[in-house]
Amino acid sequence: MGADQQLTARAADLDAADPIAAMRERFDLGGDEVVYLDGNSLGAMPRSVPAAMADVVEHQWREGKIRSWRESGWWDAPERVGDRIGRLIGAGPGQCVVGDSTSVTIFRSLCSALRIATDADPGRTEIVLDSTTFPTDGYVAASVARCSGATVLRASPAEMGNALGARTAVVLCNNVDYRTGRWWDLPAITTQVHSCGAYAMWDLSHSAGAIPIGVDEHDVDFAVGCTYKFLCGGPGSPAYSYVRHNLLERIDQPLPGWCSHADPFGMSDEYQPAPGISRMRSGTPEILSLLALNAALDVFDGVAIGEIRRKNLALTEYFCDCVGQWTPALEPALAPGLPRGSQVSLRHPDAAHIMTRLVSRGVIGDFRPPDILRFGFAAPYLRFADAARAAQELAAVLDDARVG
Amino acid sequence: MGADQQLTARAADLDAADPIAAMRERFDLGGDEVVYLDGNSLGAMPRSVPAAMADVVEHQWREGKIRSWRESGWWDAPERVGDRIGRLIGAGPGQCVVGDSTSVTIFRSLCSALRIATDADPGRTEIVLDSTTFPTDGYVAASVARCSGATVLRASPAEMGNALGARTAVVLCNNVDYRTGRWWDLPAITTQVHSCGAYAMWDLSHSAGAIPIGVDEHDVDFAVGCTYKFLCGGPGSPAYSYVRHNLLERIDQPLPGWCSHADPFGMSDEYQPAPGISRMRSGTPEILSLLALNAALDVFDGVAIGEIRRKNLALTEYFCDCVGQWTPALEPALAPGLPRGSQVSLRHPDAAHIMTRLVSRGVIGDFRPPDILRFGFAAPYLRFADAARAAQELAAVLDDARVG
Repeated sequence: MGADQQLTARAADLDAADPIAAMRERFDLGGDEVVYLDGNSLGAMPRSVPAAMADVVEHQWREGKIRSWRESGWWDAPERVGDRIGRLIGAGPGQCVVGDSTSVTIFRSLCSALRIATDADPGRTEIVLDSTTFPTDGYVAASVARCSGATVLRASPAEMGNALGARTAVVLCNNVDYRTGRWWDLPAITTQVHSCGAYAMWDLSHSAGAIPIGVDEHDVDFAVGCTYKFLCGGPGSPAYSYVRHNLLERIDQPLPGWCSHADPFGMSDEYQPAPGISRMRSGTPEILSLLALNAALDVFDGVAIGEIRRKNLALTEYFCDCVGQWTPALEPALAPGLPRGSQVSLRHPDAAHIMTRLVSRGVIGDFRPPDILRFGFAAPYLRFADAARAAQELAAVLDDARVG
Repeated sequence: MGADQQLTARAADLDAADPIAAMRERFDLGGDEVVYLDGNSLGAMPRSVPAAMADVVEHQWREGKIRSWRESGWWDAPERVGDRIGRLIGAGPGQCVVGDSTSVTIFRSLCSALRIATDADPGRTEIVLDSTTFPTDGYVAASVARCSGATVLRASPAEMGNALGARTAVVLCNNVDYRTGRWWDLPAITTQVHSCGAYAMWDLSHSAGAIPIGVDEHDVDFAVGCTYKFLCGGPGSPAYSYVRHNLLERIDQPLPGWCSHADPFGMSDEYQPAPGISRMRSGTPEILSLLALNAALDVFDGVAIGEIRRKNLALTEYFCDCVGQWTPALEPALAPGLPRGSQVSLRHPDAAHIMTRLVSRGVIGDFRPPDILRFGFAAPYLRFADAARAAQELAAVLDDARVG
């Protein structure tokens, strides 16, 4: 058997031995002809969603109308769905709430963290920002600093220790570098942050639903994340906020609304924050998007994130082996030996063009400037055979380019 | 014919002569047995919504996945739906964008308005807040002031002139008092605000879709509003922001995100705001909630808001006549002769209990503390016969209470 056949045969073996292969049935992928490797941007649709949405619209809204706030549990859906996400990131109940976009959620949580830090020690006025994080986190950090008289220092998570000091209030770090796919060591960095007396806030957008995080176990103070990537909540599904239980009563957040009030229907002019995680709410929750997410989370029922992690490590390793064999011209964006999230990024000067051609052949990844081909591996619905096909099509695109 | 029969006959005459009676067919009210007078809290479901939502979920998400951002127009839906709302509030294209909750939207717009005012005149550091507005507006104003070193002064719109001065930066006013239903004179107050050199920001949550507003015509600077009341966008549908065209390029908002960046896919660490109204976006839009709203807005196609206004004035007047005749013990919350929005509020010391009993009889309004029975009249789907029935049931509840 040649090396090519060996690789292909390995995919079949791995699929046959996959303990969570059946999860794929929980998704409606719209056919097998496309290999969808952009689940790190927008997850595929769980089968549970259409019927749930029809019920929300045609029963809860159409018939129940205003009564559904209570009778269909709309009112406390942000906390209820928050607890479901909490399980997936290792948070006990009552510490997660869902609502608003990730950008807005980062603003709320980062400002809250900064206030707690500065109140306790007025010398702590510096936000340390992961220099590799998604740009929005930086835009928001600059805005929080401006609204608070704080400063922002950018630092690579790899050298976080050098950036921390007596002025550090809070460190905002991304669990996975969205470009290279590098996984940053959350437990170790959180310990570093705490050693210097600061608070650790994590953006889990690229790890929740794919990697065990253990926010409680590792004493994370604040976490936020989007829900439309590996959590499969649908386009623009709302973000979540995690706040460590011992900080909840000290939260003094910048986006108060009637839904974060202790007595929302009292309609008082005086603001009194709700107890618990509800004080991280703001306005009326986006019920349709929120309940689609709630339905989508059914795909994780009965599955440990550790199993998903084992599979996405195997999938990405297998894909890297195929790429190494078939398209050695593509340089991995992540140096060998560095820990990987649930994606593989490859560099090529003509990456944008290559991705366009690859998509036209039914393999959907994405391009990130200046030169990165990005492939997300959502283990719940991908097979090793899909990884093999993606690598083959990629090789064909590069072959065409050489010939053409 | 007795006075009671005359009133009932008037309902039939008014319904027969109603030029927009056919709008009711555009809604799926879930049957005729309930009279729904809480459309000022959550509007009824337009018939266009279920099929549109099924398409979004089962076609756009399931099949298109990430490609739908472009191919199904998800990316610019906030601006596209914004323009549709713009038509309903009297805004030309390119000045409205949809996204985020009303609370978040107020924070963004109010902070932006304050910055423009204070940049132009550093002595203008006071937010004047409508003292009758929905509580959230006040919570947010306090937070904006805290984030900006500004102050908040509360003033009744009826006496706005006395509150304005050389320190006034921006006035945040609600178009309709959510408790009494009083309509505040937007053109006159806006002129007052401009006379003192300040910016006028209006919360249109209780007027958009029910009352012609004319934000362009009356030189309103900023406006925000929710979309789930008279606009019928569904539970928690996203809010909109209006910014007057000549202010757009001066917007420097506090909730930047990748979607408000001039080059969103450039992924630059440096923030550069988008031109036009897109700079009032933040994170990834809540597509399901947003596209349900888009479908819902079909009910307004081909209808002038002026026609809706004429009908809701007639409906509320008729209802008040019925109440005056049948339940004189209920005191109108709004003094006679004062202008009314699209709701009627009645006071009674036992209002909470009365509303509970009324709801059990199939007439759905709501209770606002301490003593207000609130009835919203959504002209697109209500008949004068519904107003008659509501008044009759209300009289029956009060009769029962007297007997019991």
